[in-house]
Amino acid sequence: MSTPDTKARILETAFRLFHEQGYHATGISTILREAEANSGSLYHYFTSKEDLLKGVLEYALTQLRPQVMDPVEALAADPIDRIFALLDQYRDMMAILHCRMGCPIGNLALEAGDDHPEARKLIDQNFRNWAMVVKGWLDEAGDRLPRDVDREQLAHFVLTVMEGGIMQARAASDLGPYDASVAQFRAYLNLLMERAERESAGASARGERTKTSGGPTRNGGS
Amino acid sequence: MSTPDTKARILETAFRLFHEQGYHATGISTILREAEANSGSLYHYFTSKEDLLKGVLEYALTQLRPQVMDPVEALAADPIDRIFALLDQYRDMMAILHCRMGCPIGNLALEAGDDHPEARKLIDQNFRNWAMVVKGWLDEAGDRLPRDVDREQLAHFVLTVMEGGIMQARAASDLGPYDASVAQFRAYLNLLMERAERESAGASARGERTKTSGGPTRNGGS
Repeated sequence: MSTPDTKARILETAFRLFHEQGYHATGISTILREAEANSGSLYHYFTSKEDLLKGVLEYALTQLRPQVMDPVEALAADPIDRIFALLDQYRDMMAILHCRMGCPIGNLALEAGDDHPEARKLIDQNFRNWAMVVKGWLDEAGDRLPRDVDREQLAHFVLTVMEGGIMQARAASDLGPYDASVAQFRAYLNLLMERAERESAGASARGERTKTSGGPTRNGGS
Repeated sequence: MSTPDTKARILETAFRLFHEQGYHATGISTILREAEANSGSLYHYFTSKEDLLKGVLEYALTQLRPQVMDPVEALAADPIDRIFALLDQYRDMMAILHCRMGCPIGNLALEAGDDHPEARKLIDQNFRNWAMVVKGWLDEAGDRLPRDVDREQLAHFVLTVMEGGIMQARAASDLGPYDASVAQFRAYLNLLMERAERESAGASARGERTKTSGGPTRNGGS
């Protein structure tokens, strides 16, 4: 029977199998067996394996908030802490997986992007949405970071740190290289925050007006 | 005929095809046809496809200096400039490949490492050797970087920047994300160099002895 449940089951199963085995190594038969679906159901929703790949990547877009970002935001309130909570969450995943499998989207970017232009665009969209959430946190961090820092670029750099760290951790079969990547990123962020403090102190010393220099206006809004 | 030339041709061809198509998608028959070798020759040198993968990764170890690092060292003499010349070299490769294919070793790390423990170790060795050359440059940069910077960790971070940047550039089919990763790394390195300068100025102001404070001794050695 083809129901929305069947479609969801096919997508979840395919996403898991692509993560475990890769896109090319995963057979449709395995997806059907593990999803307890028949090929009629699958081809009712997806015209081809490539179409299923697109479906999986669209499904991943819907999972970013509930599976990845909401747990991080529930765990940490401070925007800078959230970045490291996010990086820790990937560390926890890699620890559970004994440094195997890595990031499901990163794998597909390298394995399947070149030959599937529409899937490639959806992989890119997954990366962009991920980075946009991180950019939101960096925006929230306000003047704790220097004004001239490109926060969108910095958000994508967090993704670079995560993906580059995971790749080396998989090769080493050890979390050390991941931790090293995160440590270097933390050092960078600390230097940025120190620079913001120095610049703010310099501006105060020169008597420049800052956001808080006038003090709060209690009667504003009346 | 099985000659060392045949072996070299098989390795070069397999390395190229694994890069173009991936390890799993590359058939032995294609390697044989493109290497103009017969299966007797191949199985004379390699007992299996997995054994050929190991051979390719050992071959890659021998190519690090002549193909990757020597051209960079010939191009730039300054150790910091060399890091960016190396990152530029990968950018040039990605431009020629229209943001496809990416790093041959990075691809194998994600595609083939989990299921091939011996190949995984050789992938890790390729990463480590790459980072050790970069660490050599960072050591050469001496007191232009703060003393407490872990130069091995920083060298691996350059690899993170390259691999994470390439992954996002492939997904975007655009060099922008790669350039953004490199720009963020440059900002980090600049902050490190500024900190080293401030610390060195602070030490001079406190009258601390520095390496050059005694001046050169012209008659040393007699």
